[in-house]
Amino acid sequence: MFHVGSRSTVDLEEEITPEEVKSILLRFVFQSLDYDNSENQLFLEEERRMSHMGFRCLEIRRWVICGLIGFLTGLIACLIDIAVEELAGYKYSAVKQNIEKFTEFGGLSISLILWAALNSAFVMVGAIAVAFFEPIAAGSGIPQIKCYLNGVKIPCVVRLKTLAIKVFGVICSVAGGLAVGKEGPMIHSGAVVAAGVSQGRSTSLKKDFKIFEYFRRDTEKRDFVSAGAAAGVSAAFGAPVGGVLFSLEEGASFWNQMLTWRIFFASMISTFTLNFFLSIYHGKPGELSSPGLINFGRFDSDHKRQLLKRLKKSMSFLHFMLQLSLSLSLSLSLSLWYIHRPCLQVMEAMLVAAVTATVAFAMIYFSNDCQPLGQDSTEEYPLQLFCADGEYNSMATAFFNTPERSVRSLFHNPPGSYNPLTLGVFTLVYFVLAVWTYGLTVSAGVFIPSLLIGAAWGRLFGILLSTITSSQSVSAIWADPGKYALIGAAAQLGGIVRMTLSLTVIMVEATGNVTYGFPIMLVLMTAKIVGDYFIEGLYDIHIKLQSVPFLHWDAPPTSHWLTAREVMSSPVTCFNRVERVGRIVDVLSNTSTNHNGFPVVAHTTENEEPGKICGLILRSQLIVLLKHKVFVERASSRLSQRRLQLKDFRDAYPRFPPIQSIHVSQDERECMMDLNEFMNPTPYTVPQETSLPRVFKLFRALGLRHLVVVDDENRVVGLVTRKDLARYHLGKDGLEELQLAQT
Amino acid sequence: MFHVGSRSTVDLEEEITPEEVKSILLRFVFQSLDYDNSENQLFLEEERRMSHMGFRCLEIRRWVICGLIGFLTGLIACLIDIAVEELAGYKYSAVKQNIEKFTEFGGLSISLILWAALNSAFVMVGAIAVAFFEPIAAGSGIPQIKCYLNGVKIPCVVRLKTLAIKVFGVICSVAGGLAVGKEGPMIHSGAVVAAGVSQGRSTSLKKDFKIFEYFRRDTEKRDFVSAGAAAGVSAAFGAPVGGVLFSLEEGASFWNQMLTWRIFFASMISTFTLNFFLSIYHGKPGELSSPGLINFGRFDSDHKRQLLKRLKKSMSFLHFMLQLSLSLSLSLSLSLWYIHRPCLQVMEAMLVAAVTATVAFAMIYFSNDCQPLGQDSTEEYPLQLFCADGEYNSMATAFFNTPERSVRSLFHNPPGSYNPLTLGVFTLVYFVLAVWTYGLTVSAGVFIPSLLIGAAWGRLFGILLSTITSSQSVSAIWADPGKYALIGAAAQLGGIVRMTLSLTVIMVEATGNVTYGFPIMLVLMTAKIVGDYFIEGLYDIHIKLQSVPFLHWDAPPTSHWLTAREVMSSPVTCFNRVERVGRIVDVLSNTSTNHNGFPVVAHTTENEEPGKICGLILRSQLIVLLKHKVFVERASSRLSQRRLQLKDFRDAYPRFPPIQSIHVSQDERECMMDLNEFMNPTPYTVPQETSLPRVFKLFRALGLRHLVVVDDENRVVGLVTRKDLARYHLGKDGLEELQLAQT
Repeated sequence: MFHVGSRSTVDLEEEITPEEVKSILLRFVFQSLDYDNSENQLFLEEERRMSHMGFRCLEIRRWVICGLIGFLTGLIACLIDIAVEELAGYKYSAVKQNIEKFTEFGGLSISLILWAALNSAFVMVGAIAVAFFEPIAAGSGIPQIKCYLNGVKIPCVVRLKTLAIKVFGVICSVAGGLAVGKEGPMIHSGAVVAAGVSQGRSTSLKKDFKIFEYFRRDTEKRDFVSAGAAAGVSAAFGAPVGGVLFSLEEGASFWNQMLTWRIFFASMISTFTLNFFLSIYHGKPGELSSPGLINFGRFDSDHKRQLLKRLKKSMSFLHFMLQLSLSLSLSLSLSLWYIHRPCLQVMEAMLVAAVTATVAFAMIYFSNDCQPLGQDSTEEYPLQLFCADGEYNSMATAFFNTPERSVRSLFHNPPGSYNPLTLGVFTLVYFVLAVWTYGLTVSAGVFIPSLLIGAAWGRLFGILLSTITSSQSVSAIWADPGKYALIGAAAQLGGIVRMTLSLTVIMVEATGNVTYGFPIMLVLMTAKIVGDYFIEGLYDIHIKLQSVPFLHWDAPPTSHWLTAREVMSSPVTCFNRVERVGRIVDVLSNTSTNHNGFPVVAHTTENEEPGKICGLILRSQLIVLLKHKVFVERASSRLSQRRLQLKDFRDAYPRFPPIQSIHVSQDERECMMDLNEFMNPTPYTVPQETSLPRVFKLFRALGLRHLVVVDDENRVVGLVTRKDLARYHLGKDGLEELQLAQT
Repeated sequence: MFHVGSRSTVDLEEEITPEEVKSILLRFVFQSLDYDNSENQLFLEEERRMSHMGFRCLEIRRWVICGLIGFLTGLIACLIDIAVEELAGYKYSAVKQNIEKFTEFGGLSISLILWAALNSAFVMVGAIAVAFFEPIAAGSGIPQIKCYLNGVKIPCVVRLKTLAIKVFGVICSVAGGLAVGKEGPMIHSGAVVAAGVSQGRSTSLKKDFKIFEYFRRDTEKRDFVSAGAAAGVSAAFGAPVGGVLFSLEEGASFWNQMLTWRIFFASMISTFTLNFFLSIYHGKPGELSSPGLINFGRFDSDHKRQLLKRLKKSMSFLHFMLQLSLSLSLSLSLSLWYIHRPCLQVMEAMLVAAVTATVAFAMIYFSNDCQPLGQDSTEEYPLQLFCADGEYNSMATAFFNTPERSVRSLFHNPPGSYNPLTLGVFTLVYFVLAVWTYGLTVSAGVFIPSLLIGAAWGRLFGILLSTITSSQSVSAIWADPGKYALIGAAAQLGGIVRMTLSLTVIMVEATGNVTYGFPIMLVLMTAKIVGDYFIEGLYDIHIKLQSVPFLHWDAPPTSHWLTAREVMSSPVTCFNRVERVGRIVDVLSNTSTNHNGFPVVAHTTENEEPGKICGLILRSQLIVLLKHKVFVERASSRLSQRRLQLKDFRDAYPRFPPIQSIHVSQDERECMMDLNEFMNPTPYTVPQETSLPRVFKLFRALGLRHLVVVDDENRVVGLVTRKDLARYHLGKDGLEELQLAQT
């Protein structure tokens, strides 16, 4: 009934107890991407047939696809933003009118009910869509995209249906006033768009446009998905360079200049498209002032620098506190037992929405923090409530607003807009809400709540600091707590997601001011170091909970004493160059092994001695061969074999049928299959004595899926796969080895 | 007496005729870096002995080194900037006073002579230093650093002496008023600093600090040099992210998150250091307003966007013109026959300096473009000359100034500050001067002249456009030609250096405004496409002229029909596991082959059959072994062999003695050497049928130096090195194969 990790991307059929979770740490459910090209005869023939001009056309097509990815991602971001604005605008106007009506005569409880009901209704619709139709659309999708870019195929993650549910879910949950953001899901959306556009067809819609057929393989698809993820980041934060760095940090095994340039192009188009359409929507076409979904507004760098020096001294303390809170938050959010049944999930989401509204209402109601309503106020829905005329309730600024606006208010409202108590209470309450919300089955991101909590903390810290130092003459320097809010937001976000370079650049780009780079970098570095000391980052915890065989950048440093011999799986199931169909079917049907790559060896004799390696063939290739019945009858000539094209493989990609769906008659089982033409004749191999770091480096740099281990006679003795490498990781006491799940 | 490419980094002894240049396109002079670790027994033992804590300490030491690199690079940039400011300030004040004195009474020729003499004197000192003491310090050093990051060792390029001469030379040539910039050389300076600091010793100064000994190998050194280059870019342009991207674009074969993060750290420290000290120098400590050597000043983005749309329409034409001019410039600059004798070089440099002053003077003298001297004018040395009181000569703004200031004036001076004729003439004259100057033997960069020419062009274009469209009501939008100047500068620079992503980010960071990213990217893309159609980029031409085996990102697309068998060098000189010293000495002394890596094979019989591969040993390792006389006498036990430590190899790094300097007696020649402990027992191998793109990918991704080609019995049949791969490149008509020089 209950299990850990309900946001798991794969619907686990079996129930897992917490003890099992600890031991089963790498699951076989996840397939790897074939990033390494299978350079078989068919492929080489096609490549050799292609002229110089052909390659140039391909390159142009890649650029066109990247442009399209950027454009569509920008459009989706635009759609989400406009829908949220409209819905939230409608909601807040209705509630505000209602509150104003009842403030004088009493009966504010009706307003509360209205607010809670509106929130719950929005959230319900969103949660139903996610829980019943596509559970993988829950959450931000960033851990899944991280896995995909790392080379792990996660089922359903880049499907059109997921995208639709995700977009719809995000709109509902943000409009429903949950403590969530719409930025994280954009990265997932961009990736789905990329996977769809680059294939030129939709398997969900059963529509094949017959274009871009060349790109129907994992190598190309992963490159495009990188571009899509970058475009998503770019649209979310108006940060094209940050997007590129995100993709590279997470994904690209091998940095290629042209690819990076294309990714950058997609990012640029994406932010430009968003900017263009949002400007039109805001009635200021041509001004282009909204490069991203969230905009930190313009910071000027006047007093900034002097502040910086002092800030740094106090930073370590700030961070320690922040990180403690963070660790707490994570342990909280993860120790909660999430509900597994869809209808309960929907009800929980509605409950959270109602509670959020109630808490916010109570906070606003009991707050006495009235601020004068200035001319240049950025408030869109200033609530007067019990304040004097011409004043507004400052707690309402933080709660009665979309989180994006609240963040901006915290950054930019003039000193004195908030009193410390308001901020302190807000931080605590919002923190608890955010942690609770995080576990819900709704599509939503964690960026904005983190920023908001951090900004509130930071601003509070800034105010306190200026109070302490107010006796000195330097108080003018400390005057702007908005700068502290920015630093606090960066620290909190950095502590939660633990991204480094890319997050710095994203923050700098969202701030629109290059000069903030240095303090932001210092803060993020501190946050990462302090955070790593206590617990892993949020996304990494997710990935670990799902037992994904995630490869880090390097092998653990103390793993030099391990060699390929210890690491590899052995014995290996091999095929002969010309193999009996029956044996292939049997091997593929054997669910207990479930291998995906098989070394092809020369003349294995029946005895136990392993054969010499002469190629590598994939399960997917064998399945296509079986489906097309590419058999040679015993002793007949090879001419009778039907000529298979690369196109046949591409058409089957990416949803190769399972072996069970392919019927092979008893007669056919006795036929032979000639694998020479289809296998990759030059797989990468390593000798048995190769150290783990060396194997790791080869594997990671080339994005391999299978690495054959051979002895000094070139005979196959083992096979290293992603799972074998991901097993080793650095624990507190040195190298630890994870267990492999047998399922 | 004369030869092509006098700025060649290696002093060519032989004279080469142009015909030879065409045929000899890959030279053996250049060694590759051993980026791949030689994981021999010694290394593995050391790694296995190290604890978890030990690795953490190493990591901390890496961070410290990166911080130091950033700090020192920033200091050097600061030194250069202050020296140039002081010297140029002195020069311009003197000349200005002189001009003012003589304007009324006539006799301006004396001013001219003074100016020319001052220029020539500065340039002479700089040119003497470069030409007589370290010719490799000529030019910007960027091609050399590109090569180094690509994996080619260029002699003397990262030595302390080079750095000193370079810094001195840059100061002289910029203060001498040549059409050059001080930004390019910063990249080289940063790289030298990195190479020096990371090794913890200076071979030039014969000083060993006995620290950072672990980092004394090519793998680590190259990583640090990447950080240094990034720090240099960062200091030059105030662009830390751009610096990181530059390093990655040029260097990192394998993107590693921690490494990138360290590079970013170095960049940040570098720009911060520069900023900090320059602010103190400018008397505004704490303001931190000069993040880089060049500052584009603040652009506001008000009208920018509407302009953008129109701009794009006219861009293609603009670019076509720009690129035509560019091609012309390159062919000009390269068809010049540079003078090879140092004293002639110095005289040529002096001549150019004098001519520059004369031309500038003539231009100013004959120009009638007077502008009113506003209150907010940014002019530091406004020349009145024959203008009315309260006015200044606008031609002098462009010429009578350091190029950095001229660029800023072109970007920011209000509309109408320049008249079109002035700009047109200035562009042409400066262009010719820049081309001529480029060939001189002085340390100087090409960034600033390119920016200046482009800015002048762009501004001219903007003015013309606004004249054409002045009848329409939109003329206000076209009013600011400074924006066109920025776009023009980006286009010109992009057309010359052909960097893509990194240049975009550098320009955006230097502009300090994220919103300019999209137009700059479009312009750079157009410039690259148009430019590539005519001719390669300036740096690539340099690299090609020097016949460096430079590896690009991918193998040429049409090279699938080539396999390792065609590409490899064969036969290969192999050693036995236990080899006779005499044979080793003979092989190493054989100048006609000059190999650097030797496969070690098992029991080669005397017949021609190749042996089974069991390791790879490098020339440098063998030389250390010979030097320490690690011999086993025939039939004696292995115990007599002196135990060699990894430290011995590190001490010899990087200047291994030549084989000729090692004396081996006739008796010793008969001894044996056991290579088992020292060879890399698990070199990467590929089968003979591997296609060229696949070999290339493996080679590039892992930064290999030697790749052993084996047959299906694991016997060595060939060796692929960098030169074998660099031979193939894409010409106009498809794949072309370069010849290998026999020298």
